[in-house]
Amino acid sequence: MNRKIVCSVTLIAALGAAYPLTGFSQVKPETQVKWRQSAMALQGKYFYGTLRPMAQGKIPYDANAAARAVGYLDALSKMPWDGFTPNTKDVKSAALPAIYTETAKYKEAEDRLQSEVGKLVAVTKSGDEAAIKNQITAVDKACGNCHENFREKQ
Amino acid sequence: MNRKIVCSVTLIAALGAAYPLTGFSQVKPETQVKWRQSAMALQGKYFYGTLRPMAQGKIPYDANAAARAVGYLDALSKMPWDGFTPNTKDVKSAALPAIYTETAKYKEAEDRLQSEVGKLVAVTKSGDEAAIKNQITAVDKACGNCHENFREKQ
Repeated sequence: MNRKIVCSVTLIAALGAAYPLTGFSQVKPETQVKWRQSAMALQGKYFYGTLRPMAQGKIPYDANAAARAVGYLDALSKMPWDGFTPNTKDVKSAALPAIYTETAKYKEAEDRLQSEVGKLVAVTKSGDEAAIKNQITAVDKACGNCHENFREKQ
Repeated sequence: MNRKIVCSVTLIAALGAAYPLTGFSQVKPETQVKWRQSAMALQGKYFYGTLRPMAQGKIPYDANAAARAVGYLDALSKMPWDGFTPNTKDVKSAALPAIYTETAKYKEAEDRLQSEVGKLVAVTKSGDEAAIKNQITAVDKACGNCHENFREKQ
């Protein structure tokens, strides 16, 4: 009985940290998955649809379009992570169970992406096209690193 | 024949305006719909999940959480609109055909939302809780106005 109470309190504390003072703690796991997938899809829109093809020379580099996409990516790259909570692990998605078992490694991958996007935001302000393209490649590797370990092969 | 060519040129020009120098013009209508629905879902996460319940007193007001949600909403409220192109009208979604026929009215509704969110971003910086809550209500009305006219009844 006592153990149960302790577990519940820990769970509530963990959820509280993820969703500080919002209505999110009432949210169904299916909705959490939908939200995190939405954030991933939109990161894909601006990263794989604009930034990476510019860095790879597949579409012309356009400083304004790149800056807009980087600004969106800055916000979007902060959005998916509170949706990866253990209560979502039985909802069908491409997320691998390792997210909930190799938590330190997963957190490191998540932090690396956000750190690389942060550097991209900074370098974009410099206007240095070559440096921006290099940093887009660094973000690409951070995406790939996490997908490699924590997402089902596509 | 000539008329066809003129129509095609107009269409290309319209798409060019929507997707300047990106890879988006290659995107399937289904993907465009998925992206715009993702942006709508995430606006819902932060608006209906955090901001509106705070304004309505359903969850405690928290200045930091509100500011974060407003920042996300600022970016998200710019993202859906390039996905509402006529080539998506046969893809199943809640978007009503009026979007593509009553274009001036639709554009006005879209602009109103972005304008109200812009005011919310400004007022959030002031830190005036009552003013922020009032502006959240104004954003809510702008969402509702567009949904009323251009989205299937839920």
